[in-house]
Amino acid sequence: MKYLFGSPGKVSGLVLRIGQCLFASASIGVMASASGFSTTTAFCYLIASMGLQVLWSFGLACLDIHALRLKKDLQSHVLVSLFVVGDWVTSVLSLAAACSSAGVVVLLSRDTRFCRVEKQLACRMFELSVALAFVAWFLLAISSFVMFWLLASV
Amino acid sequence: MKYLFGSPGKVSGLVLRIGQCLFASASIGVMASASGFSTTTAFCYLIASMGLQVLWSFGLACLDIHALRLKKDLQSHVLVSLFVVGDWVTSVLSLAAACSSAGVVVLLSRDTRFCRVEKQLACRMFELSVALAFVAWFLLAISSFVMFWLLASV
Repeated sequence: MKYLFGSPGKVSGLVLRIGQCLFASASIGVMASASGFSTTTAFCYLIASMGLQVLWSFGLACLDIHALRLKKDLQSHVLVSLFVVGDWVTSVLSLAAACSSAGVVVLLSRDTRFCRVEKQLACRMFELSVALAFVAWFLLAISSFVMFWLLASV
Repeated sequence: MKYLFGSPGKVSGLVLRIGQCLFASASIGVMASASGFSTTTAFCYLIASMGLQVLWSFGLACLDIHALRLKKDLQSHVLVSLFVVGDWVTSVLSLAAACSSAGVVVLLSRDTRFCRVEKQLACRMFELSVALAFVAWFLLAISSFVMFWLLASV
């Protein structure tokens, strides 16, 4: 298999995984601390989806650290197939969560005047959480493409 | 290059493109005929994004018909690279539009009681349009994966 930026078991791959973990955790933290998020399904789904991304990326970051320490090669066909499936499922779910929340945020803050009228809604925090979720998804999308490329180019 | 289901210039590829075109057009038609859609940014974005998908898929369907008639090979590296970029951009935009609209539909019909209170909102049609958009995206996602696989496996 080729060695690309973000390959599993490499430093670049580890940096990507840590970035995904951090941004997804930050998105959860901001959303969970915003008042009034629990009444909206899209925001609850964002927390669930980002939670899944944190678990997945944290697991793979640990695997990368293990491989870097013991200088093991993680690029076997079976492992990369597993990474591709996990990355793509998590990536699609994260994008779906970020976009559905973004749709609701735009509805609340621009299309209607809910954010101005209902002062207990923390609209700024919703916006920040969605932005962080998009960054987390973007980093995961890079990993997904690299994994798919590695698998296809065998 | 390999020949996979959905490859450009093949009957399976043409069927996928026609399916993408039909479902995206149906999604636009249903959404545009639903009253009250224009007040929501997510629904307008859905129409724009599905419009882009119709144009892209229709163009590639015409190219497939041309290749099938003249028995030309469309699997050159440059052409497939172009298809990959176009397919992925359109695919991400379509998924984003479908998800943001789905988030708004769930907010209107379940989280709040807007659909019951505001009778002029055609919530059933919004739901149908979003479902059609998801089918259109799914067909485009198949094409995107096939193109990426073809490009990576050169």
